[in-house]
Amino acid sequence: MEDDISNLSRPQMYLFGCTLKSDKREFRVDVDDDDTEQQLSLKAVCLGAEAEDKFHMVEVEGLTYDGKSTKVPLVALKPSVMPSMTLGGFEITPPVTFRLQSGSGPVHISGQHFVSVKDSDDEE
Amino acid sequence: MEDDISNLSRPQMYLFGCTLKSDKREFRVDVDDDDTEQQLSLKAVCLGAEAEDKFHMVEVEGLTYDGKSTKVPLVALKPSVMPSMTLGGFEITPPVTFRLQSGSGPVHISGQHFVSVKDSDDEE
Amino acid sequence: MEDDISNLSRPQMYLFGCTLKSDKREFRVDVDDDDTEQQLSLKAVCLGAEAEDKFHMVEVEGLTYDGKSTKVPLVALKPSVMPSMTLGGFEITPPVTFRLQSGSGPVHISGQHFVSVKDSDDEE
Amino acid sequence: MEDDISNLSRPQMYLFGCTLKSDKREFRVDVDDDDTEQQLSLKAVCLGAEAEDKFHMVEVEGLTYDGKSTKVPLVALKPSVMPSMTLGGFEITPPVTFRLQSGSGPVHISGQHFVSVKDSDDEE
Amino acid sequence: MEDDISNLSRPQMYLFGCTLKSDKREFRVDVDDDDTEQQLSLKAVCLGAEAEDKFHMVEVEGLTYDGKSTKVPLVALKPSVMPSMTLGGFEITPPVTFRLQSGSGPVHISGQHFVSVKDSDDEE
Repeated sequence: MEDDISNLSRPQMYLFGCTLKSDKREFRVDVDDDDTEQQLSLKAVCLGAEAEDKFHMVEVEGLTYDGKSTKVPLVALKPSVMPSMTLGGFEITPPVTFRLQSGSGPVHISGQHFVSVKDSDDEE
Repeated sequence: MEDDISNLSRPQMYLFGCTLKSDKREFRVDVDDDDTEQQLSLKAVCLGAEAEDKFHMVEVEGLTYDGKSTKVPLVALKPSVMPSMTLGGFEITPPVTFRLQSGSGPVHISGQHFVSVKDSDDEE
Repeated sequence: MEDDISNLSRPQMYLFGCTLKSDKREFRVDVDDDDTEQQLSLKAVCLGAEAEDKFHMVEVEGLTYDGKSTKVPLVALKPSVMPSMTLGGFEITPPVTFRLQSGSGPVHISGQHFVSVKDSDDEE
Repeated sequence: MEDDISNLSRPQMYLFGCTLKSDKREFRVDVDDDDTEQQLSLKAVCLGAEAEDKFHMVEVEGLTYDGKSTKVPLVALKPSVMPSMTLGGFEITPPVTFRLQSGSGPVHISGQHFVSVKDSDDEE
Repeated sequence: MEDDISNLSRPQMYLFGCTLKSDKREFRVDVDDDDTEQQLSLKAVCLGAEAEDKFHMVEVEGLTYDGKSTKVPLVALKPSVMPSMTLGGFEITPPVTFRLQSGSGPVHISGQHFVSVKDSDDEE
């Protein structure tokens, strides 16, 4: 169960970004620090200027309410039609994997990475 | 009547997604657990890379203020014009049904699923 | 003057939608219940798949700060250029009128309808 | 210095809109009432159906942190490419001027106008 | 470590904007005042009306969670395809650098600049 909000420090905000392309079609974000609570907020997705004029599909894989890991297509971009799109702050809790489902990229995902530290008395 | 906010746990956030296509034109989200309060927040809609170059209309069916169930078209997408769109966090309270009104898809809807648990003393 | 927030129940959220077309170019939302405080939050606008390939302009008419009713064009859509657009949560206080200013539609507006109930002691 | 939040009434929300065109290229919003604190939240920008198929640039002029007035281009629209765009709630504190930098319009800006009244004891 | 929220004044909001072009491909925002806590909220990006019909890539360079400075492409714009895009409020903490990665511009970034002042007793 996630912690009660009162036992968490004020979330620190960092820049988040990852690039998906033909030789690196996946990017995984894990939480390797039990003393923190982390969240991504996805803000925009865009193609590289050199991307082929084909459809590029980006999917995200994460946990659903019934505890299963599910793959959800997020956006379809194409240089001559729609090279970028805002995601307006799509919050996702790691662990999460981003995957280039179709197209050779590069596709860039940008957003914020929020990290809260759990109070020490909370961990006893 | 929905519960007073103070009797609810902090909402847990999960990934939500569904796919609509010619052989599965509807996706229904029910609340089958009276001990919880649930909400979807729709973030993006996109066509699959293989979708036909026709207009795809997605509608949502849910409850309005006068207690009736109503069908509301959400978005019209077309691969050669607009393959994706952000919905910027369109919160909807289940029960709700998503329907592919026109086009053969696939159309992917993504967002968040918030679940709050009602305090036990609240249920006596 | 609108009520102090503490005298209002927690806003209940419902689905809102309306369709504008050549034989129904206006849709008005009134508040016919003095015991409630109501607000719309517009989330998306889209053309119907059968709309003519012309510009469709949607305007909203509501109250400005100087107490006058004013008509404000919200969005211009065209099937072959831009069939849909997110409004990202454009909150508007009824009474409000949506109007198809140009084009024959159909144009669909979707969003949320928030309703708070005023406390009984508040109404004496 | 802006006032402490506790001395302000709950912000009242009104509809805001303005139109820029060749014979009226500027629209200025002033605060002519010292007893209030005001803010605009820009939600969408769109071209009129009759606008020429050229690029239309809208800029906003307002105060930056170093106290200077600066002109910032907000959006470039063109009927055959992008006739409308959401601004998702771009809050700006008057005094502010909107200007049609290029193109003959009409261009319509829509949003919300928030007005809070300062408590009387606050003004002694 | 950023300060506890209670020791900060109410954030003051100012207009933010910068322009990137061939003879000025970078714009850096530093925090040169230790008594303040600052944050940018990016709202929109758009091309100038005179921009060449090529892809323009804008990237942002800032700090990630592991303390490294990273370059993240934000948006790809092209006059004949997508001349503008909303970023819906992409909050970034300075120091941060915006860079025109490809294309000759001009590209305009607009948003808000929030500044909170640290309480004096907080600095002893």
